[in-house]
Amino acid sequence: MADKEERKELLSRPIKQLDLDNTITVLDLVKAFGNTSIQARNLGRCFEIYEDMIADEDRPTIILGLSGPLIAAGLRKVIRDMIHNGIVDVVVSTGAIMYQDFYQGRGFKHYVGSPDMDDRMLRNLLIDRIYDTLVDEEKFEETDRMIAKIVGSLKPGNYSSRQILSLLGESIDDENSILHTAYKHGVPIFAPALNDSSIGIGLTLYYENHKNKERITLDSIKDNHEFLHIVLNSKKTAAILVGGGVPKNWVNDAVVMANYAYQKEIEGHSYAFQITTASPADGGLSGSTLEEAQSWGKIWQKATKATAYVEASVALPLIVGAVLQGGVPTGRKKINFVWTDDSVEVKYV
Amino acid sequence: MADKEERKELLSRPIKQLDLDNTITVLDLVKAFGNTSIQARNLGRCFEIYEDMIADEDRPTIILGLSGPLIAAGLRKVIRDMIHNGIVDVVVSTGAIMYQDFYQGRGFKHYVGSPDMDDRMLRNLLIDRIYDTLVDEEKFEETDRMIAKIVGSLKPGNYSSRQILSLLGESIDDENSILHTAYKHGVPIFAPALNDSSIGIGLTLYYENHKNKERITLDSIKDNHEFLHIVLNSKKTAAILVGGGVPKNWVNDAVVMANYAYQKEIEGHSYAFQITTASPADGGLSGSTLEEAQSWGKIWQKATKATAYVEASVALPLIVGAVLQGGVPTGRKKINFVWTDDSVEVKYV
Amino acid sequence: MADKEERKELLSRPIKQLDLDNTITVLDLVKAFGNTSIQARNLGRCFEIYEDMIADEDRPTIILGLSGPLIAAGLRKVIRDMIHNGIVDVVVSTGAIMYQDFYQGRGFKHYVGSPDMDDRMLRNLLIDRIYDTLVDEEKFEETDRMIAKIVGSLKPGNYSSRQILSLLGESIDDENSILHTAYKHGVPIFAPALNDSSIGIGLTLYYENHKNKERITLDSIKDNHEFLHIVLNSKKTAAILVGGGVPKNWVNDAVVMANYAYQKEIEGHSYAFQITTASPADGGLSGSTLEEAQSWGKIWQKATKATAYVEASVALPLIVGAVLQGGVPTGRKKINFVWTDDSVEVKYV
Amino acid sequence: MADKEERKELLSRPIKQLDLDNTITVLDLVKAFGNTSIQARNLGRCFEIYEDMIADEDRPTIILGLSGPLIAAGLRKVIRDMIHNGIVDVVVSTGAIMYQDFYQGRGFKHYVGSPDMDDRMLRNLLIDRIYDTLVDEEKFEETDRMIAKIVGSLKPGNYSSRQILSLLGESIDDENSILHTAYKHGVPIFAPALNDSSIGIGLTLYYENHKNKERITLDSIKDNHEFLHIVLNSKKTAAILVGGGVPKNWVNDAVVMANYAYQKEIEGHSYAFQITTASPADGGLSGSTLEEAQSWGKIWQKATKATAYVEASVALPLIVGAVLQGGVPTGRKKINFVWTDDSVEVKYV
Repeated sequence: MADKEERKELLSRPIKQLDLDNTITVLDLVKAFGNTSIQARNLGRCFEIYEDMIADEDRPTIILGLSGPLIAAGLRKVIRDMIHNGIVDVVVSTGAIMYQDFYQGRGFKHYVGSPDMDDRMLRNLLIDRIYDTLVDEEKFEETDRMIAKIVGSLKPGNYSSRQILSLLGESIDDENSILHTAYKHGVPIFAPALNDSSIGIGLTLYYENHKNKERITLDSIKDNHEFLHIVLNSKKTAAILVGGGVPKNWVNDAVVMANYAYQKEIEGHSYAFQITTASPADGGLSGSTLEEAQSWGKIWQKATKATAYVEASVALPLIVGAVLQGGVPTGRKKINFVWTDDSVEVKYV
Repeated sequence: MADKEERKELLSRPIKQLDLDNTITVLDLVKAFGNTSIQARNLGRCFEIYEDMIADEDRPTIILGLSGPLIAAGLRKVIRDMIHNGIVDVVVSTGAIMYQDFYQGRGFKHYVGSPDMDDRMLRNLLIDRIYDTLVDEEKFEETDRMIAKIVGSLKPGNYSSRQILSLLGESIDDENSILHTAYKHGVPIFAPALNDSSIGIGLTLYYENHKNKERITLDSIKDNHEFLHIVLNSKKTAAILVGGGVPKNWVNDAVVMANYAYQKEIEGHSYAFQITTASPADGGLSGSTLEEAQSWGKIWQKATKATAYVEASVALPLIVGAVLQGGVPTGRKKINFVWTDDSVEVKYV
Repeated sequence: MADKEERKELLSRPIKQLDLDNTITVLDLVKAFGNTSIQARNLGRCFEIYEDMIADEDRPTIILGLSGPLIAAGLRKVIRDMIHNGIVDVVVSTGAIMYQDFYQGRGFKHYVGSPDMDDRMLRNLLIDRIYDTLVDEEKFEETDRMIAKIVGSLKPGNYSSRQILSLLGESIDDENSILHTAYKHGVPIFAPALNDSSIGIGLTLYYENHKNKERITLDSIKDNHEFLHIVLNSKKTAAILVGGGVPKNWVNDAVVMANYAYQKEIEGHSYAFQITTASPADGGLSGSTLEEAQSWGKIWQKATKATAYVEASVALPLIVGAVLQGGVPTGRKKINFVWTDDSVEVKYV
Repeated sequence: MADKEERKELLSRPIKQLDLDNTITVLDLVKAFGNTSIQARNLGRCFEIYEDMIADEDRPTIILGLSGPLIAAGLRKVIRDMIHNGIVDVVVSTGAIMYQDFYQGRGFKHYVGSPDMDDRMLRNLLIDRIYDTLVDEEKFEETDRMIAKIVGSLKPGNYSSRQILSLLGESIDDENSILHTAYKHGVPIFAPALNDSSIGIGLTLYYENHKNKERITLDSIKDNHEFLHIVLNSKKTAAILVGGGVPKNWVNDAVVMANYAYQKEIEGHSYAFQITTASPADGGLSGSTLEEAQSWGKIWQKATKATAYVEASVALPLIVGAVLQGGVPTGRKKINFVWTDDSVEVKYV
């Protein structure tokens, strides 16, 4: 008897077969995905969660974790648009993504290649390959040296990656740049492993020239400090995780740091969705589920969450395209971060 | 010197960063994907190849291989639309896909579930799970018995899966059905491993009741025979492979059969694209590259080809949606298959 | 309070760090794997389950499902040894695996190649590639024609794949052959999609030469019939699934067929382990979990089961090597299948 | 004619079917793998390359990159044994691996769990899940605070991760510890993203208590500086990459840094093998091929290299077990690193 009702309940929400006749726009498609299955449904769920993040009147701080070949993938302006439209408040990235944004900001390009090119021939031609995309190593080296020069303008002291990246964003004049747009809007960008990137190479060139001199440090615990105070002082947080690696782990770890350092009991992220191609089966961080993060308290036990196993060059334009076509609610507050020596104020304006 | 030119040549086609401001429709998006990288570019390539298949004045026979939980995934009408719009001429499928089309054609449904449900509880409730989707086992059993009954109307003899599936398509009256639409348009559907499916279960129920009687056989070499003559008598062939398994292998093997049986030197498919999530690294058929198929002569050495590593519930609506929004050329010929005892005529009308 | 005990209970079985000093043999290693984590633990679990299958006094019928490039992978003798040592009672395979066993049985070979060879060049040389392995297409064609000739010796009638494969096993004289060893031991081998393989090509060559004559059919529902009676008449069943595709699905479907056809309530497999690299995330059969199969009743609700996400060329020798080093219990009964027209007797001798 | 010879050449090295009768030890198995195909062959190749690294009379500096849940996976002693036996000279790791080594070094444990546990329940019990493994959050917090205390003993200044990890290794007394064994043998361990780990949390706890005081910094560019001089001053380098992420990227980037900073033309790694489950298809660093790294000059154009797509808990014990069973050549030189303010001397003793 009870079984009959449970059965009825479980068989109550039918899949709707996707109807291309009524699927004209990106928004139509992503909405329709939500009523289908497998990864299309997951993409639809990510979209719905993103809309919930934006509509939440508690104004969660939306943190975007970025990893993978996203500039090569053609997502530079998509990410820039997320910042420009105020649907991202904090960015946590690999250094490589921000480096390649900067490289493009200086007028250099990514080119169409193929995964099965002869890499030894490319080496001879000073062309570097990123899967199916090519970059110009001569311009890379030039850019690395430019970074060394730019950071040389800083007065000696300890800097977080946020401060270095803000300086780089300030130094270029490109409306389509992620770094520049974030700089303009006061959106902080962290690269907690900035040393492991071509920006890190630039910083190392600087270092090698300042070995016995007063110099700047990339003080990577300062990153932790700054980010933990953002989390501590936000009403709520929401996480969007594109790819795995350090950005994913670090976006989630902040809650633990905040709680341990200040004996608080901050709940983890209230919303979270991730876009990944990594399988959970190797037990690694990149493929780890959002449920696993709940056991650690990094994501709230009652959080709304979804994972889409779809490569980001396809998934991100679908989700962000649908959100922007759907429209950001008018009157939604903006978050301003006011940095002090010890902490950061989170202002809703 | 030569190097300089080669370098210039290799660095000549820049990636275009995707611009959501100019990306309103599904067609806009998929076109833009073609100028980006990673799997988005591959999706864009699949679309371009599909357009080439359709525009080719030699009117290639377009063969669609289907495998995976495509009806659960909400792709029933998308596949039906491909047949209805004449952009597919022959379908090669798993039995499960056609069974689930038939199950829906009888008015039954797929329901929203989740991959982490308690499967032992579902067993007790007679609910069957397909990843994140549920079906009603009572209706499945009912449908299996119906199939046994329908094939019981055939007179004893040897049948190909095409003939069985055509009979099933004829028996339902549902505009949105793949089987029914194919039946109406004379598009043959093969399921070379039809025994391995719930349709196979239906046929087995029939078999067990006819053990010592005259009966029909599912003569699976007849499938090979029929399909080989389609390939043999087509001007050209093109393959669209959604998922791996038997359909993928069989769509490609026909060329070899045709050549061995009739001492011909038919080239393999002139166009091919595949949508898969299987990695080549396990050496299996499902993840095998189209290049590997070229070594066997199954795909023409000079074929236009692409592979998108994107799950089908997302990839297929994007590609087919874009093709249909782009429009099928007017005046394009239709292929009619005229079945004779020994062979099949391929008529362009 | 209750929580404290639950906590203690959950934190009661420590991981044992693998100690290479005490890990000399394959058996040592696989046993040690069982006390570690991630896929090593799963491999260890598969081994333990295999030992349980063999030790079970109810003498379960052990069914081995095979898919993937296993002969190319060098597993021919490993599989042959499973049959020879009586730790497999029934084999369900793709046609390709049995074909390649037969090809080797006729003295032909697989050769070391590489995944990034020039496939168009290979085509010109009549060399076929299987991932990183090469075969001789001239010998393939010769073997296909030999198969056509061998089946030509059969008198007209309807045959299951088991009967065809038994005939092929009889025709070669090679102690290391899977087909030949199975033939000698009376172990049935099914290839439910035999038409989709080079054996199928051989059968098609035969078909094309007998179009208007009396001929044999590959009666693929007869496969279902035969296999269902094995399952129906076994005390218990156990499934070992190497790879996905038709063999995996069909090994599991038999229970459903048996129940529907004879209104029985046979439980699904009492033991099951699978070796796969397919992820569940695309919703397909190949990556589907054994839990999902429980919702369908294909695997018993209380079955012992495990899945190792490790490619078979590595996983199978580890598991089988450990089982054989551990030793098969003496006095263990053998299963004899006695085939009748309508059914099959399962004798424990 | 030429073709005939090319054909003969290509079909000259047959696969040897694995024979379990002659495969008793781990060494037997891994050697036999080298004559098979698919990932078994790749594992065999990794083993052969490791033997070449060790036998090379130019005494390459062997750098081990580590990422993934390796302590949970039971590989702690395997990695410790690599250091103890002198077959690794430098370790580059995630912070998490070294943290979990330290946690175990303080007497705490990892426990057997399962990937489908109820994570919200685990949260309530203060148990943290790593895929199928559990750790004790109370002991984690205790360990984090201990780390804060230990680094508190350092005098203010700028430290590399190597210096912090050496301090932690010194502080525990556990023969089976990676950190402790490396400390004893003078093997440097870098964690270039040490801030992103529980060690980073410990350092952050320290930071929050020293905000306006003189304090230590984790000077992450100092890591780059130190590692670049190791590479610069080594005769040759060899890379073993277990997993992806920052360790993989950073191990490879050092060559670029060294060349840019000192206008040298150091060749990339002379040997490299990687163990990974990440597919190249998402274009990300973790799945990127060693060929791709050659286009960047990070791996030498003529390097000996291999990639095994096998999860590390299975692959690493096979490879290292076989190498140790095979025996390290007697008289092989040891590398001593002598650290100076500006650089590091590489001594062969």
